Amino acid sequence: MSGKLKKKATKNLMVFTGRSHPDLAHEVAAELGAEVVPTSAYDFANGETYVRYEESVRGSDAFVIQSHCAPINNAIMEQLIMVDALKRASAKRISVVLPFYGYARQDKKHRGREPISARLMADLFKTAGADRLMAVDLHTDQIQGFFDGPVDHLMARPILADYVAQKYGDRDLAVVSPDAGRIKVAEQWSTRLGGAPLAFIHKTRDINRPNETVANRVVGEVEGRVCILVDDMIDTGGTIAKAADALKAEGAAGVVIAATHAILSDPAVERLTACAAEEVIVTNTLPISEDKHFEGLTVLSIAPLISAAIHEVFEDGSVTSLFGGRAS
Amino acid sequence: MSGKLKKKATKNLMVFTGRSHPDLAHEVAAELGAEVVPTSAYDFANGETYVRYEESVRGSDAFVIQSHCAPINNAIMEQLIMVDALKRASAKRISVVLPFYGYARQDKKHRGREPISARLMADLFKTAGADRLMAVDLHTDQIQGFFDGPVDHLMARPILADYVAQKYGDRDLAVVSPDAGRIKVAEQWSTRLGGAPLAFIHKTRDINRPNETVANRVVGEVEGRVCILVDDMIDTGGTIAKAADALKAEGAAGVVIAATHAILSDPAVERLTACAAEEVIVTNTLPISEDKHFEGLTVLSIAPLISAAIHEVFEDGSVTSLFGGRAS
Amino acid sequence: MSGKLKKKATKNLMVFTGRSHPDLAHEVAAELGAEVVPTSAYDFANGETYVRYEESVRGSDAFVIQSHCAPINNAIMEQLIMVDALKRASAKRISVVLPFYGYARQDKKHRGREPISARLMADLFKTAGADRLMAVDLHTDQIQGFFDGPVDHLMARPILADYVAQKYGDRDLAVVSPDAGRIKVAEQWSTRLGGAPLAFIHKTRDINRPNETVANRVVGEVEGRVCILVDDMIDTGGTIAKAADALKAEGAAGVVIAATHAILSDPAVERLTACAAEEVIVTNTLPISEDKHFEGLTVLSIAPLISAAIHEVFEDGSVTSLFGGRAS
Amino acid sequence: MSGKLKKKATKNLMVFTGRSHPDLAHEVAAELGAEVVPTSAYDFANGETYVRYEESVRGSDAFVIQSHCAPINNAIMEQLIMVDALKRASAKRISVVLPFYGYARQDKKHRGREPISARLMADLFKTAGADRLMAVDLHTDQIQGFFDGPVDHLMARPILADYVAQKYGDRDLAVVSPDAGRIKVAEQWSTRLGGAPLAFIHKTRDINRPNETVANRVVGEVEGRVCILVDDMIDTGGTIAKAADALKAEGAAGVVIAATHAILSDPAVERLTACAAEEVIVTNTLPISEDKHFEGLTVLSIAPLISAAIHEVFEDGSVTSLFGGRAS
Amino acid sequence: MSGKLKKKATKNLMVFTGRSHPDLAHEVAAELGAEVVPTSAYDFANGETYVRYEESVRGSDAFVIQSHCAPINNAIMEQLIMVDALKRASAKRISVVLPFYGYARQDKKHRGREPISARLMADLFKTAGADRLMAVDLHTDQIQGFFDGPVDHLMARPILADYVAQKYGDRDLAVVSPDAGRIKVAEQWSTRLGGAPLAFIHKTRDINRPNETVANRVVGEVEGRVCILVDDMIDTGGTIAKAADALKAEGAAGVVIAATHAILSDPAVERLTACAAEEVIVTNTLPISEDKHFEGLTVLSIAPLISAAIHEVFEDGSVTSLFGGRAS
Amino acid sequence: MSGKLKKKATKNLMVFTGRSHPDLAHEVAAELGAEVVPTSAYDFANGETYVRYEESVRGSDAFVIQSHCAPINNAIMEQLIMVDALKRASAKRISVVLPFYGYARQDKKHRGREPISARLMADLFKTAGADRLMAVDLHTDQIQGFFDGPVDHLMARPILADYVAQKYGDRDLAVVSPDAGRIKVAEQWSTRLGGAPLAFIHKTRDINRPNETVANRVVGEVEGRVCILVDDMIDTGGTIAKAADALKAEGAAGVVIAATHAILSDPAVERLTACAAEEVIVTNTLPISEDKHFEGLTVLSIAPLISAAIHEVFEDGSVTSLFGGRAS
Repeated sequence: MSGKLKKKATKNLMVFTGRSHPDLAHEVAAELGAEVVPTSAYDFANGETYVRYEESVRGSDAFVIQSHCAPINNAIMEQLIMVDALKRASAKRISVVLPFYGYARQDKKHRGREPISARLMADLFKTAGADRLMAVDLHTDQIQGFFDGPVDHLMARPILADYVAQKYGDRDLAVVSPDAGRIKVAEQWSTRLGGAPLAFIHKTRDINRPNETVANRVVGEVEGRVCILVDDMIDTGGTIAKAADALKAEGAAGVVIAATHAILSDPAVERLTACAAEEVIVTNTLPISEDKHFEGLTVLSIAPLISAAIHEVFEDGSVTSLFGGRAS
Repeated sequence: MSGKLKKKATKNLMVFTGRSHPDLAHEVAAELGAEVVPTSAYDFANGETYVRYEESVRGSDAFVIQSHCAPINNAIMEQLIMVDALKRASAKRISVVLPFYGYARQDKKHRGREPISARLMADLFKTAGADRLMAVDLHTDQIQGFFDGPVDHLMARPILADYVAQKYGDRDLAVVSPDAGRIKVAEQWSTRLGGAPLAFIHKTRDINRPNETVANRVVGEVEGRVCILVDDMIDTGGTIAKAADALKAEGAAGVVIAATHAILSDPAVERLTACAAEEVIVTNTLPISEDKHFEGLTVLSIAPLISAAIHEVFEDGSVTSLFGGRAS
Repeated sequence: MSGKLKKKATKNLMVFTGRSHPDLAHEVAAELGAEVVPTSAYDFANGETYVRYEESVRGSDAFVIQSHCAPINNAIMEQLIMVDALKRASAKRISVVLPFYGYARQDKKHRGREPISARLMADLFKTAGADRLMAVDLHTDQIQGFFDGPVDHLMARPILADYVAQKYGDRDLAVVSPDAGRIKVAEQWSTRLGGAPLAFIHKTRDINRPNETVANRVVGEVEGRVCILVDDMIDTGGTIAKAADALKAEGAAGVVIAATHAILSDPAVERLTACAAEEVIVTNTLPISEDKHFEGLTVLSIAPLISAAIHEVFEDGSVTSLFGGRAS
Repeated sequence: MSGKLKKKATKNLMVFTGRSHPDLAHEVAAELGAEVVPTSAYDFANGETYVRYEESVRGSDAFVIQSHCAPINNAIMEQLIMVDALKRASAKRISVVLPFYGYARQDKKHRGREPISARLMADLFKTAGADRLMAVDLHTDQIQGFFDGPVDHLMARPILADYVAQKYGDRDLAVVSPDAGRIKVAEQWSTRLGGAPLAFIHKTRDINRPNETVANRVVGEVEGRVCILVDDMIDTGGTIAKAADALKAEGAAGVVIAATHAILSDPAVERLTACAAEEVIVTNTLPISEDKHFEGLTVLSIAPLISAAIHEVFEDGSVTSLFGGRAS
Repeated sequence: MSGKLKKKATKNLMVFTGRSHPDLAHEVAAELGAEVVPTSAYDFANGETYVRYEESVRGSDAFVIQSHCAPINNAIMEQLIMVDALKRASAKRISVVLPFYGYARQDKKHRGREPISARLMADLFKTAGADRLMAVDLHTDQIQGFFDGPVDHLMARPILADYVAQKYGDRDLAVVSPDAGRIKVAEQWSTRLGGAPLAFIHKTRDINRPNETVANRVVGEVEGRVCILVDDMIDTGGTIAKAADALKAEGAAGVVIAATHAILSDPAVERLTACAAEEVIVTNTLPISEDKHFEGLTVLSIAPLISAAIHEVFEDGSVTSLFGGRAS
Repeated sequence: MSGKLKKKATKNLMVFTGRSHPDLAHEVAAELGAEVVPTSAYDFANGETYVRYEESVRGSDAFVIQSHCAPINNAIMEQLIMVDALKRASAKRISVVLPFYGYARQDKKHRGREPISARLMADLFKTAGADRLMAVDLHTDQIQGFFDGPVDHLMARPILADYVAQKYGDRDLAVVSPDAGRIKVAEQWSTRLGGAPLAFIHKTRDINRPNETVANRVVGEVEGRVCILVDDMIDTGGTIAKAADALKAEGAAGVVIAATHAILSDPAVERLTACAAEEVIVTNTLPISEDKHFEGLTVLSIAPLISAAIHEVFEDGSVTSLFGGRAS
């Protein structure tokens, strides 16, 4: 046909990072054999964030990595602005990569007149121009449904569990959930650890301040066993430290804490070092500053997982194949 | 100002029902002192659904009640069509009332390439024209966040728990979750029943056929206690019946089943009558046909709750005030 | 430019089918030299539909074939859920293929407070994630405009008319519309059949039950001619059977019925076999069960047409070129 | 409750007009007992349209009347701009009143790569801020479904038919459609005129220039009868004038033309005065300039109908009640 | 009509404030005769913001006041979350009140691959649920067009100019813009001050760091005149302080700085106290901490203006009537 | 994987033009080595616009060139309809190319109850189906932010300035803005012309008729210099002609007018020939009819710039690289 200009199409993978956790992004890019795209980013005197890419991004398959750590609103706003800049610069497809998804715990209304901030975040990213989300160990699986588009849900559990199995696999284990609401996750650990028995801590939280625990009671058999206390995140560490102590008090032979997201807000380090746990195993979905490293803390890298997933997305492969077909 | 015609504004409450559970809608309307709006609804020979309202709905504050029971796709499609007809007929505000929210269990991807049908349903209602949703005991609280707009989440638990407290309050009780994923709900029952101890059934499900259970183990102390086995819904009854038997085997003094939604798909009635439970307490969020009534089944009406909530919505009051401020 | 990974882009055609008319989908795929993608689909006990694809669909150019036959709401809901699953699994482009578009007859408000369900269906597919629609012989051409995006309108008329021309071309023909509203279609037949004279049946329908006819009067000359009675669909067959009889009563030399969509709701078969028509020619846009086959029924396959159209779409060719440039 | 300021709500009807047909708008406003809101509107030197309202429109129930006559793109753009100004000035509800809906004939793709401009117009009004549409005698009823929101479809047929019945009711009548595609409308006239027999003109149009007719053949009995030739609009008058002559040639006792929309593009007046029709009856949905008035032209006012419909909308009454429940 | 419940409609004004500038919100509410709605708001340990209203907001006409001051991303995110909570709690209409609109200076792309953050902010508020915006002295008037809905643009210029006229009206004045891009604003001041002559500072900025000025040259006559140096905001004060000094060097009799928004990022106070200006006049659209008050700083309250505008909005009056019809 | 059909992807550039300025489109296509796609376009008798492409556009990367000149509403509507036709014909990506963006001057509300037509246009193109915009010298840079998607902003200034530098570079120059609001643009010229001094005309406009000027005063030194009077467009030429005369009266050695968009509405030519300017330099973003050419008018072609930009877009290069990184 006459006036048409024809050309073979190509696709270009480009990796971007905000300023919250650049080390992880560089590690991911390196695994992919790429480099992070050079980007100018700074704050104006009044705190407004400015971003600009140093090279053309037109037509790219863009992956914007930003972990939502404190100051968390800055991290999110910077990523929204990065997405806006990509959209306006004609990126072909924009994938938002969230090693840690901020506001994930505000995923429902506990009481009247509360926001559902986890849904709001999904909508804000959509509005800014995100085509897809990729996230690691969402606080609840339903958050997948908050985004109107594809969500690749990566699971760090195998990484953590393999480490535990290798180090503690010859002991009598129990898998314990620090919270009645997350035993499902413990069940999955139990399966992976060859059917270790389950237990959970029955505690009451004050609805107004969901971070504070009131009472702890162990439900299930833990005596004489090394308890693997599993959770998705450690924030101030109050719940999990008390759980470790409660397990010890119930006769546990040992306590090992395993969690994906190491938020480690104060006084988490203090609590974790003081509590009955021997080892605390986390990943680097969030940056852990030097002063937060303590003896007994083991940090496993999430970068190989994220880069493998990005590779599958770029190559039109299967992300769930990385997890035996599971998506949650 | 010259050309303007002024008039005092009024608001009109109108209640509509589809064909899936008209008795409930009529009961709700009667509690409100209203009548259900006369509606023509039938299916054409090839199964297409037709709906038309017999009186003007222009400017109304419309509440469309439909419970999603089998044949469930018909019930949903009829309600979508009802909403479309209201939108095109200039209803002022359209609230979709879902005593039972269909597809609520498909609220996440368990495996790759699955839909998230619970989110899809929320979007379909939005597209048809719904401004708001009202639902009873959502399968997971996060479904509130699937709808882009206000969701009034009504809780039947107080109705069920008050009945249990009155009838069994003088016995030693335990609250048991049939599933590790729902202990949170059991915790809330425990609080309402004065701190009764908690237990749960540890079972494995095959990821391909999430209805089938593989093994049951009781975690927690139940010996000598009347176990209140709580869940949000009873579908085929397999899980809960096995749980009841497992509890009895562990020495429970008695088993009472309490659940909001009585789906009662075959062979639920058979299983429930055969199992160790003495009483099965449900509500009428779903229609229960005559042949599904059995000895030991107690049905409490949800209509007073729904009508109270509609009243609050219409009067700009507070729905969560009906639940002491809680929204989940 | 530094950090970019480059790759040649490819495109992958994948064909999917729901459970309403798999034979047609397999026939279409075979024509394309492809296979239907293996898919798990079943209904839960309470009627909820579940779907999952057995292989990765990421990046695919997906064609989801589902014919909307009874139980029609199930067929539509299944297809919506299939589209949602494709969207969430990162299909690149999703084309919904509708051999028969359900609710097409509800394309306007006949009376106040009716829905416009044909538009609603278009919006539901858009919401679920459809990028494009492909449909065969829409009830009215305006339905193309109900979808916000490309619609490929395939016409079965040439297939039917060529068969008629070949078999009855040496007789004196008349083209008859059973309904005043569809003479436009008869005109197109007339053109294709070399300018055969036109007639139509003037009948009155009760506005409340648009399926029921009141009176039939032939307008136009039919005496001594073989009348080709043309329509887009045969549902219960009442209108067309009465039309055939009316034509015979007016002196027609013979009556042949030709329609694209064989819904054949009861008692269509009974009526068609009892009426004056010698032959009833349809296509397989809808499944026709064994017990609906009767002597005098001729079924032509639509699969070559659909596969040719899919081929054009995938290859960025022209679909209307299949119809000499016409789109309706 | 503490900080709330309470006030009784009122609603204010305001009528606006563009510059295409202000007489009609003033007539409508007068019927309502209101005045058209004073508005500045002019074109800049390069043809850009400017609009500003002279008084506050905040909180109003706004009805924007504009008939789409030549130069039609100006009329449409002005109305879009008027709606934008109302939206930005906080009107509460914006109803677009279209006595004649421009581009209504482009309601489908006749051939590949055509637009569906009638749908585009509906979307443009939605985008600009329209909440509702009100239109008179849409070219096809399906256009109701092009707008995502309520459409009030007003019918001028009763006004025209009552005039015809009164003047010609004692003669032997036939109702004739000038086009195979519009016999449905003739059927409705026939019903209203006591069952007068039907006929239509079978003509072929060149698909490239749908305004040009090739051949005319009368189908149906018209001899000795006064033929009421009915259509929705008269544009250049070619089709209808030829139809009138064809009827006369077939022995019609007389021909009367009745149509809602008098576009009367050149050379319509010439053709109509030259043709066999005795009287041409239209309404004032479009402005008819002095030089287009001719002997035999009767213009009935549509203003009472539009004002009655606006009154029903404002008062939350029923618009279809004006038409015995019909919406098309 | 039978089943309808009728009630007179009321409307309720409710004022909300975030934590960035509560004093202003309380002052506004007091002017309205209302109180700010009691609200719980705090940050979790990792910086996530939590908000909940202490009383029902259902059906309210809600005005959410938040000034975007440092830490500015927190202020914006808190307001977005407040809007989400109002939307989900069924507020009837949500107006976002922005005494200072954050990111307003990023209203265009200066270079490729930049975001347009001012548009992004407008979209984020729309997504969260805002129906309307109200803002004071937008950096550019075009920002009004970034929001898809009504924007009430309030102007502080009259407040500032009246103060200047009263205090300096008997002197020979010149109005000076510190920047070529804002002389339009100076023109408006000139008009208000009786036609005082205009001047501007011609300076070059480095495109990469738009806060830094390179050279200053006065264009226009300023000798012997009291120069009113006008701008919309004072951020770090570099530009305006240098402008004041340049004016003095050119022989100005005195320099007075007038600006609406006192961002006063460091080292603004130092610069302003050191420069040639005698008085710096600002408003309280942003909070000014005690340590930022200096001799020569005059702060005028914006609260009467905002409350007057809210009053007009609530009462369906005219906001532009407060400015003689002007909107920019 | 089994059923997949694989194919290498290609991309096809296609250039389209409306009827407002086909010469420019053909020149652009020729520069690209392509041809304009053959298109049928005409107006029906009542002014409705009809468009159809003569060859398949499926899968194309489409660029639709239309300059918005008088009759401007026709030009815009035709382009909207062209975009709709491309969307419905499955173009892959649709870029709207606007050598002159109509309604750009209505980019804010000057007074209450005005539209923001420049934003409305952006939304209308989005609704019709545009994925991207490309425009030359937008009236204000903020219009980039009116479109929800990528905007490529092309600048003609270098073309004009290079011509001026070459012809007048050896004279003493001053750069003059005819309007206080556009000195920013003059600053950019000044930079490009080696730092020539700046001046502007201080004039007052009546807010009701923004085209009419009241008074002119030169601010800045122009005596003895050749004044380059720069603007983005020349409409009726009143402002710029008066400015030229005012400059001459202030002692300018000469006056040269340079503007991108030559609207030249009457009586522009008369005014420009009569005024003090020696030369008027414009581009062909708008068609200039033969009778508008006058001595002293120089027209530079914009086609090389537009074709270079289209080339960059198609090849995923950088458009801002054409302007040294600048986007405004």
